[in-house]
Amino acid sequence: MQQAPAMDEFTIAIALWDGVEELDFAGPYEVLAAWARYAERDIEVVIVADGADPVRCSHGLRVVPDRTWDELDEAVVVVMPGGGVNDRLVDGPLVGHLQCLAASGTLMTSVCTGAFLYAVAGLLDGKPATTHWGSVESLAEQFDAIEVRPDARFVDAGDVVTAAGVSAGIDMALHLVERLDSNEMARRVRRYIQYDPEPPV
Amino acid sequence: MQQAPAMDEFTIAIALWDGVEELDFAGPYEVLAAWARYAERDIEVVIVADGADPVRCSHGLRVVPDRTWDELDEAVVVVMPGGGVNDRLVDGPLVGHLQCLAASGTLMTSVCTGAFLYAVAGLLDGKPATTHWGSVESLAEQFDAIEVRPDARFVDAGDVVTAAGVSAGIDMALHLVERLDSNEMARRVRRYIQYDPEPPV
Repeated sequence: MQQAPAMDEFTIAIALWDGVEELDFAGPYEVLAAWARYAERDIEVVIVADGADPVRCSHGLRVVPDRTWDELDEAVVVVMPGGGVNDRLVDGPLVGHLQCLAASGTLMTSVCTGAFLYAVAGLLDGKPATTHWGSVESLAEQFDAIEVRPDARFVDAGDVVTAAGVSAGIDMALHLVERLDSNEMARRVRRYIQYDPEPPV
Repeated sequence: MQQAPAMDEFTIAIALWDGVEELDFAGPYEVLAAWARYAERDIEVVIVADGADPVRCSHGLRVVPDRTWDELDEAVVVVMPGGGVNDRLVDGPLVGHLQCLAASGTLMTSVCTGAFLYAVAGLLDGKPATTHWGSVESLAEQFDAIEVRPDARFVDAGDVVTAAGVSAGIDMALHLVERLDSNEMARRVRRYIQYDPEPPV
């Protein structure tokens, strides 16, 4: 494990890639960036991608990365959203980046099918984890060493935290704020985003 | 009111501007784009902004617009997110764009402080409406003609629908899917984004 980061080095990296599901990353981005605004220490939330060109998300939203993977020195937290996780992505350089971050002591978090990239990277072996409801069976079938929890909203397994599908990233991110800061701060962020859900259907 | 749009002209425009709050637009974007993917008619969800350059959102996220306002012929629905609604924005061309859309029969929807732009545009006179909890008093004080509902998650006033703060846009957008399509479709989208919130704090 690396040393606890200095106050001015608290980087939260949100990993984007072509095909990423919009709300998977936008939910945690909002929560963690609101925390960064309230916090008395210097926290930065950055979008990281392979290159500097805009990422094209699952439904077509185009987002400009703040950093390339080469420009990211370290991160205290990484958020790995899900979406169209395909063979090309799994066989690409992303898994190696994640393994490097995990080895340096980064707190690894995922939303939705982002968990599959952690599974391929071997980060979930022997650990409890979850993913989108439509993929829990597949995760369990493909990776024997993972204790898949189909009904969990998110699973905090210590150095890896995985969330269920899409909107579950909001709940997971509030948990991260509580874990890394305080219950009071997490409640403050929840109040700011007026997160008193009333699903109408 | 314009004619009911042909099946291939169902455009949903999400208005972005420098300072817009990320989740204000990303929540409805996810819900409406998921609907567009499931729907058997041709629905497009487009990001509209003043120019073609990336919009810099409230916390720093940079999003590439799909259309400029000049390129937007018409829209069946517009979503006006909130965030840093300041005098410069209110005095700019946006209010005029919104008045044109409303006059052409577009269903006007807002999230958070986006309601202030509709208020300035005169679209909420004599109507019930809501906004972020931190701005309900200000909305009521500045606009006598609006019946402000501080405790509503969203208010459907017919041709204008306003939502409370930030995350409330998700609930409002699910309501829009139910209203414009069906309860079954809205439930399908809710299931897709696994919207069974469990705020941990």
